[in-house]
Amino acid sequence: MDGACVFCSDDGGRIVFRDSYCRTVIADEPFAGFCRVIWNAHVREMTDLSPNDRSHLMKVVFAVESSLRELLSPHKVNLASLGNQVPHLHWHVVPRFADDSHFPHPIWGAAQRRATPRPVAADFPQTLAARLAAALDGGGRR
Amino acid sequence: MDGACVFCSDDGGRIVFRDSYCRTVIADEPFAGFCRVIWNAHVREMTDLSPNDRSHLMKVVFAVESSLRELLSPHKVNLASLGNQVPHLHWHVVPRFADDSHFPHPIWGAAQRRATPRPVAADFPQTLAARLAAALDGGGRR
Repeated sequence: MDGACVFCSDDGGRIVFRDSYCRTVIADEPFAGFCRVIWNAHVREMTDLSPNDRSHLMKVVFAVESSLRELLSPHKVNLASLGNQVPHLHWHVVPRFADDSHFPHPIWGAAQRRATPRPVAADFPQTLAARLAAALDGGGRR
Repeated sequence: MDGACVFCSDDGGRIVFRDSYCRTVIADEPFAGFCRVIWNAHVREMTDLSPNDRSHLMKVVFAVESSLRELLSPHKVNLASLGNQVPHLHWHVVPRFADDSHFPHPIWGAAQRRATPRPVAADFPQTLAARLAAALDGGGRR
C-alpha cells in the first residue's frame, strides 16, 4: 500500500471483475472497451510476482482480451504493462479499430485522425462482467 | 507463414534464444537492451494461441524481463504486445531508464529529451543468451 499511488487509493475505473489478487476495470479513456487489469497489491514488475501469481494475472488479462473480442470484434487487441508513471502493476487491454484515433499507431503517440464514434452497448459493463465471471469463476485461484 | 510479414521472412534482430515455438531477439532500436519475443508461427492475438502456448510464450517474456533486470538494472520494464502494423504475435520487452529519450512516457510517443548514451557491455548478447538458456532450458516446453 502506497498512499500516493492512484491504484492503491482508487479502484481505477468501473469494476467488472475482482478477486483477492486483482481487479478488472473499464477505464475512463476515449477508446471503446479499454480495460485495465490491476494487481491489488502495490507491486512494481511482473517478475516481482511469484510464477503462480503471474500466471493468475495473465489468465485474467487473457480472459479480458477474449471477452472484448467476443463483444466488440476489434481489428486488433493491444496489451501493455508499462507503469512508468504509476509503478503499480497493471495491464492495459485495448481493443483497436482501423478507424480509431491512433490506428495503426500505439494509443500513446500522436492521433492520426478524429476518432469515429463507437458507442458500446448500454449493458456492456454487465455483459463483460458476466463473461468474465463465467470465464474465471472456478477456473482459477480465488 | 505470410510472405509479406517481416517476422515470417526475417528473424527480427539478433537471436539470443530460440526454441520450436518462439525466439528472442535484441531489437535494432535506440533503447539499450530492447528485446522482442516473437512467436514463430504467423498468429495474430494471444487468445488465438492455446492456453499452454500462451503460458510458454509468457514464460519466455518473463525470463527476458528477469534477465534484463539482472544485467541492466532498469528503472522500469515495459511489456507490450501491440501488432497493429505487424499482426504477427510479438512482445516488446523494453528496459526503461529515467534519462532515456521518452521516460516517463511510453517509447511510442514524443521524445522528452536527448537520450543519455547507455552502451551495453560488448558481451551483452552472449551474456543474455547464457542467462536465457539457463532460465529456460529444461524448464519449459521445447
